[in-house]
Amino acid sequence: MSVAIGLWMILFTGLSFAAEEAKAPEPAKAEAPTAAPAAAAVPAPKLPGYFTATSDDPKKPPPWPDPTGGASGVWATPAGDAKGDVPDTLKLGDVYDRMVHNLYSINYVWVLVAGFLVMFMQAGFMMVETGLCRAKNSSHTAAMNLMIYPLGGLAFWIYGFAIGWGNWWNGPVPPGWYPSLGPGLSLLNEGVGIGAAVDAAGKATGAFTYGLFGTKGFFLSSAVGDVSVMVLFFFMMVFMDTTATIPTGAMAERWSWKNFCLYGFWIALPYCLYANWVWGGGFLAQGGINWGLGHGAVDFAGSGVVHAMGGVIALAGAMVIGPRIGKFDAQGRAKAMPGHSVPMVVAGTFILAFGWFGFNPGSTLAGTDLRISYVVVNTMLASFTGALFAMFTLMAKGQKPDSTMMCNGMLAGLVAITAPCAFVDPWAAAVIGAVAGFLVVVSVFFWENRGIDDPVGAISVHGVNGLWGVLSVGIFANGAYGAGWNGVVREEMVKLYGADGVRGLLYGDFSQFIMQLIDCGVVAAFGFVMAYVWFKISDLITPVRVDKEVEIEGLDGPEMGVLGYPDFQLHQGSRIVE
Amino acid sequence: MSVAIGLWMILFTGLSFAAEEAKAPEPAKAEAPTAAPAAAAVPAPKLPGYFTATSDDPKKPPPWPDPTGGASGVWATPAGDAKGDVPDTLKLGDVYDRMVHNLYSINYVWVLVAGFLVMFMQAGFMMVETGLCRAKNSSHTAAMNLMIYPLGGLAFWIYGFAIGWGNWWNGPVPPGWYPSLGPGLSLLNEGVGIGAAVDAAGKATGAFTYGLFGTKGFFLSSAVGDVSVMVLFFFMMVFMDTTATIPTGAMAERWSWKNFCLYGFWIALPYCLYANWVWGGGFLAQGGINWGLGHGAVDFAGSGVVHAMGGVIALAGAMVIGPRIGKFDAQGRAKAMPGHSVPMVVAGTFILAFGWFGFNPGSTLAGTDLRISYVVVNTMLASFTGALFAMFTLMAKGQKPDSTMMCNGMLAGLVAITAPCAFVDPWAAAVIGAVAGFLVVVSVFFWENRGIDDPVGAISVHGVNGLWGVLSVGIFANGAYGAGWNGVVREEMVKLYGADGVRGLLYGDFSQFIMQLIDCGVVAAFGFVMAYVWFKISDLITPVRVDKEVEIEGLDGPEMGVLGYPDFQLHQGSRIVE
Amino acid sequence: MSVAIGLWMILFTGLSFAAEEAKAPEPAKAEAPTAAPAAAAVPAPKLPGYFTATSDDPKKPPPWPDPTGGASGVWATPAGDAKGDVPDTLKLGDVYDRMVHNLYSINYVWVLVAGFLVMFMQAGFMMVETGLCRAKNSSHTAAMNLMIYPLGGLAFWIYGFAIGWGNWWNGPVPPGWYPSLGPGLSLLNEGVGIGAAVDAAGKATGAFTYGLFGTKGFFLSSAVGDVSVMVLFFFMMVFMDTTATIPTGAMAERWSWKNFCLYGFWIALPYCLYANWVWGGGFLAQGGINWGLGHGAVDFAGSGVVHAMGGVIALAGAMVIGPRIGKFDAQGRAKAMPGHSVPMVVAGTFILAFGWFGFNPGSTLAGTDLRISYVVVNTMLASFTGALFAMFTLMAKGQKPDSTMMCNGMLAGLVAITAPCAFVDPWAAAVIGAVAGFLVVVSVFFWENRGIDDPVGAISVHGVNGLWGVLSVGIFANGAYGAGWNGVVREEMVKLYGADGVRGLLYGDFSQFIMQLIDCGVVAAFGFVMAYVWFKISDLITPVRVDKEVEIEGLDGPEMGVLGYPDFQLHQGSRIVE
Repeated sequence: MSVAIGLWMILFTGLSFAAEEAKAPEPAKAEAPTAAPAAAAVPAPKLPGYFTATSDDPKKPPPWPDPTGGASGVWATPAGDAKGDVPDTLKLGDVYDRMVHNLYSINYVWVLVAGFLVMFMQAGFMMVETGLCRAKNSSHTAAMNLMIYPLGGLAFWIYGFAIGWGNWWNGPVPPGWYPSLGPGLSLLNEGVGIGAAVDAAGKATGAFTYGLFGTKGFFLSSAVGDVSVMVLFFFMMVFMDTTATIPTGAMAERWSWKNFCLYGFWIALPYCLYANWVWGGGFLAQGGINWGLGHGAVDFAGSGVVHAMGGVIALAGAMVIGPRIGKFDAQGRAKAMPGHSVPMVVAGTFILAFGWFGFNPGSTLAGTDLRISYVVVNTMLASFTGALFAMFTLMAKGQKPDSTMMCNGMLAGLVAITAPCAFVDPWAAAVIGAVAGFLVVVSVFFWENRGIDDPVGAISVHGVNGLWGVLSVGIFANGAYGAGWNGVVREEMVKLYGADGVRGLLYGDFSQFIMQLIDCGVVAAFGFVMAYVWFKISDLITPVRVDKEVEIEGLDGPEMGVLGYPDFQLHQGSRIVE
Repeated sequence: MSVAIGLWMILFTGLSFAAEEAKAPEPAKAEAPTAAPAAAAVPAPKLPGYFTATSDDPKKPPPWPDPTGGASGVWATPAGDAKGDVPDTLKLGDVYDRMVHNLYSINYVWVLVAGFLVMFMQAGFMMVETGLCRAKNSSHTAAMNLMIYPLGGLAFWIYGFAIGWGNWWNGPVPPGWYPSLGPGLSLLNEGVGIGAAVDAAGKATGAFTYGLFGTKGFFLSSAVGDVSVMVLFFFMMVFMDTTATIPTGAMAERWSWKNFCLYGFWIALPYCLYANWVWGGGFLAQGGINWGLGHGAVDFAGSGVVHAMGGVIALAGAMVIGPRIGKFDAQGRAKAMPGHSVPMVVAGTFILAFGWFGFNPGSTLAGTDLRISYVVVNTMLASFTGALFAMFTLMAKGQKPDSTMMCNGMLAGLVAITAPCAFVDPWAAAVIGAVAGFLVVVSVFFWENRGIDDPVGAISVHGVNGLWGVLSVGIFANGAYGAGWNGVVREEMVKLYGADGVRGLLYGDFSQFIMQLIDCGVVAAFGFVMAYVWFKISDLITPVRVDKEVEIEGLDGPEMGVLGYPDFQLHQGSRIVE
Repeated sequence: MSVAIGLWMILFTGLSFAAEEAKAPEPAKAEAPTAAPAAAAVPAPKLPGYFTATSDDPKKPPPWPDPTGGASGVWATPAGDAKGDVPDTLKLGDVYDRMVHNLYSINYVWVLVAGFLVMFMQAGFMMVETGLCRAKNSSHTAAMNLMIYPLGGLAFWIYGFAIGWGNWWNGPVPPGWYPSLGPGLSLLNEGVGIGAAVDAAGKATGAFTYGLFGTKGFFLSSAVGDVSVMVLFFFMMVFMDTTATIPTGAMAERWSWKNFCLYGFWIALPYCLYANWVWGGGFLAQGGINWGLGHGAVDFAGSGVVHAMGGVIALAGAMVIGPRIGKFDAQGRAKAMPGHSVPMVVAGTFILAFGWFGFNPGSTLAGTDLRISYVVVNTMLASFTGALFAMFTLMAKGQKPDSTMMCNGMLAGLVAITAPCAFVDPWAAAVIGAVAGFLVVVSVFFWENRGIDDPVGAISVHGVNGLWGVLSVGIFANGAYGAGWNGVVREEMVKLYGADGVRGLLYGDFSQFIMQLIDCGVVAAFGFVMAYVWFKISDLITPVRVDKEVEIEGLDGPEMGVLGYPDFQLHQGSRIVE
């Protein structure tokens, strides 16, 4: 994810031809590649259409949109009709075609399964958030986590995907790149930006110097009715729902159902705009080729796009909605309001950690990119140190090892490693997670001391550590992976270090750190302002907060009509203000 | 699934040769394909045995059953013994063999992982059903959902698989078809039916004009001891357990354990008979070639085979066992008996929605069929609109957005999209789900008003929406996918529309709608009668219902010997009749 | 897993060349294979480096460690820079290279996804163990299951992996073998043992007659910074956490948090030592080639390595820590202390059964090994009969079908089938599971009658049935699979039976049974002694058991600082001693 996210596939040799072109405003796509100046006399080689998204025969209708995948390589089939595969009569290129169909199939299987795991994280969020709330609000909190999935998802289908990924094909990529999910992604080629590029004939290419948003794919119309597009849509959709569900934790136990529903349809707007800038080929991704800042904004699986965005929206929401009744006493001192089920919180945490194994390595968008094994190990190690250092931090403060805070530590480590997971060494992943585990504990008390009531710690887990994750790329990325990312090909790096991967300041590229700082600033400012304004406006349409009586009674009955636990005798404390 | 389900693989060109043959009673298998009349003089091309399930050398023993998969293409290996792969000395056909082994491997990985997800749905059913019951019956309801998995599974192993899929190889397929899970499926070639086909020598081929049930594979004996068969067995097994567990919801809180255990061994009988008719090559699948009705009964992943069947059995069971004590007052007015844990219901719903991403796209039985991405997106969209329209319907009735009813709405959308998921556009998936979300709310009140007590809404979710899903194929299928399905190859459709996929009445094939109506009628009538008779008979062996005292106390102690929540203080209402 | 586990890939022909060599102390690796004496004049064929882990060009730097996977076959890419793939100009060997990259990719995707499922089992263990404890200890039990994952995982990263798998490449394998996860595994080539092998030049090869432990890969240092190593690390890591979490059940409700944390860092030591002996190429794996006992110790997915080890440590821990207050009355009679949430136990059981579908078939370490389908079916069947025979055993004893004991029956069946799952017929899997279901019930009462208090039955489920699983390989393995396992190639078996797979005593190889008995003895004695000594010593550092007052109050508040269920009114019984 990112312009190049996952689709990105760099040739192992010959990047030297490409350094100049990489800074050209319109990236060269793999279609019979622009020959480098020195080699201009060599005729372009004939490449299969399933790499270049061009039709072999201009007289035939274009093979994309391709709703069955028949144009993504060739499916091996017997010669049932005397026209299929008779191995003895095939040519080498025919076998190559079938081998490439296998390659796409591996990538589809990988990305879809990874996406399933990400979708399952909804269950984890539901359990963590509900478990951290009081029993009297459990039906309401669970229902918000249930319904944000369809609410956000429909908004993504209606308008979000088009805004975020509608011009994805025109994002910056290195020469020789091809989409790992198949040529149908070439349909995502319309958008809006500053500085429209033109081809030799003066015709607009669809690319922009500064991309702002895409405009193709509303309602997944037939214009994008292609198997490749569907994979990308699904994977990106489940990512957005993570962002969407984060504020339901920070605003839990007092958010009115109707205002929440409005929010559910709105969240795709800020999310997809910013996602376009980083993952959809927009101006932050273009920061490398435009401004010479590293490889542009690099956020492998979304510490920034997904988690920081969710966290700053949660902050804005918590500020607008205000603290729960009873959270702060007359002197402003915070009072503990413990969650009603620790086992539910721990189970949810494990579901999230499980789903993260789709979140991070799935973001290669390619099972054939064997770097996935590094991503998995780094993700795991950061979750380990996150949990442990949260425990150590608590103990250093003289507190007991609060089960739920250790859960938040594990999640903080996962949030932080999400951006750098593909680019760093295992030891660095452990360090990033350890810092996250420390940060989350400190941050929870920080916000509480400022009168911000966040029942589940969403601002600290996702917001603060999301930003830390984005920054950490600019520190620890070791250059082993990501050559050509966001279209940046740097000969000088190859000379200096032997490779042109993404590098942090510890590995010789301070400009990447600057770019990551800019990215952090954009997501924090943009997300916060958009959300603050939204919550203020939506409050005028239907109040953001329930009545005081409803809050004291618990939202389950008044808002949802069903209690969370009707058979159980609850302590008074869970029904009325303490 | 369906005769052709998933196995179905249509060649992209040359269907024109095949229109005649498709209506022949015995389908031409891919084995050196029957040359079309006009091309009779052309010698049949030599095809690899792993496509045709024939041995290259008749002197050698047949390569199937193949317990290690060595005969499904060729595994790439180095020449450790001077007989393995030395790339320089291989021929093109050798590389093709290895490429095909990769293709089968992709399909195995995909189908097995999808099957794991389907198996995990058992946990989802357990949580939804248990959460919707009262705490005093939670141990019993959970145990039923636990044990239906081994009980039903052993019955499937002992006799179900043989009945359902024992003659699978002789189902109707288009010319040039080959099994995506490998040639070992050719072992499933014995059954019973009407109108036995004979070959030129007058010998029975194993195919029937009207297939009734299979007879090979009891206990997975060594006659079917093949890796291909094991994949199919596993995937079909976990599907059946979904059907098996549906009635445990409708009959919860009063079903005696012993009667339930008997039921667990019986359920494979009706399920596998009907599954044979639709998915195992039986007479409903043959409806296209026999009666000219569309592509025969088309039920991609089992709205009918799995869900409608489960729903009508649940209806019969609920009628025989009668309502819970206290559900209806003296005037027959229904009384709410809320489930004891809303968070458990929501968690279960997410597990089910997660597992459905195995259920539906796994039913291609091929990860190399890239249409899986469409299936995933359609499945997700229908779940979205199902949940939302359940909420809208409740609100339109002036009710609150009951958390558990929105869960049922999401599940209803999933049930309905199960049959059409591969054949429809995303917008149609959204419509199908929306109708399901409306239907489930209306249906729940419909049955309740008729004195049917279904504690979890299983009849409405699975029965009513299962039928709706089957019908919706006959309305919305757009013709893009499914050419050759169930052996139907129609030249006139190619002329009219450019493709011969499965089409509903909105896309020019009214006969498909008729076939789907017939299918609905068969499952409803057959399932209901079988189940009603069964519950009446089994009641004579051991009573279907627990004693009144047991029901009032709660079934946990008397039936299972362990309480669901021994440490918690429960309201009286959850222990005695209200 | 095992030296050859999963990586093991045997050529289908020509094992006859190899019988002699197989008993040589240093196994011949696939690198230009040692020609058999009779064929010495034939020049060794030139094989691709990605099979043999040798560089084609000695002048270039060695291609491993390979942090991006570029040296594992060749990734199909277009000729964007005029140096990529132009299909028309490729040679056959080039297409072969790309096909092999697909093969590795399939194996990565399979093993990683399987590993994710295994990791998710942590959630299952948490729920089963917590549900079986009393509510007053639920936060503590859940937290132990949460934190064993990072504690054990970091220990594995720091020192465990190096001990267990650091000399993996020098384990015994058959000729022609290559690693299914790629050539980078050749980096794991340093260890300690008895009887160092030397090559023709008198230089130590790294192999030993009796391997004891490995010494490479501490902290996953850059010396092993390879994508292949990362996959192996991840998969092996999640396996160890299963072992690590088993004692938390047997010692629950009384284990002090600090002592538990120490244990978490220690557990990798005994686990990885023993794992080295069986899976890492050590002396038990070498039992076939050294002592002529079958194929050496055969434990496909770890009935012994994972479960028996966990079970005997749990036994030692339960003995050292002593029974819970109130478990035994003054006469030593056991008193039931029912778990606080049956639905939680059942949900956890399903999660475990789901995760086991990663545990067992993932242990092929190859999605291209189609035997995975057998493994899946056998795993499922044993879980079925395990659950049912636990129920039958209870009923035969005149007891009710205790929901939680049926859960333990299902788990017992899964534990037992873990070692033999790849080697036995489906009927044998059913028998193995049935025995396990019987054994677990008998065993629970056996230990209880001896004054051992195991709140969750971990000793019986994992210890007793782990040993039964290891033994069952020596009884039921049918010879269809595993030829060449642990480097054993036996011509006489091929003559007698037509194949040289792993065979139990029912299939002609009594020596395998003896080897399995030895393996059982080693794990029981080594694990128990190590653990007993450890718990005694660690008790001196920080007490293993909490104070009496803490135990009576419940550990949640005093140890963790947060109660499991603060909103719920609990029975006195769950807060104070009964």
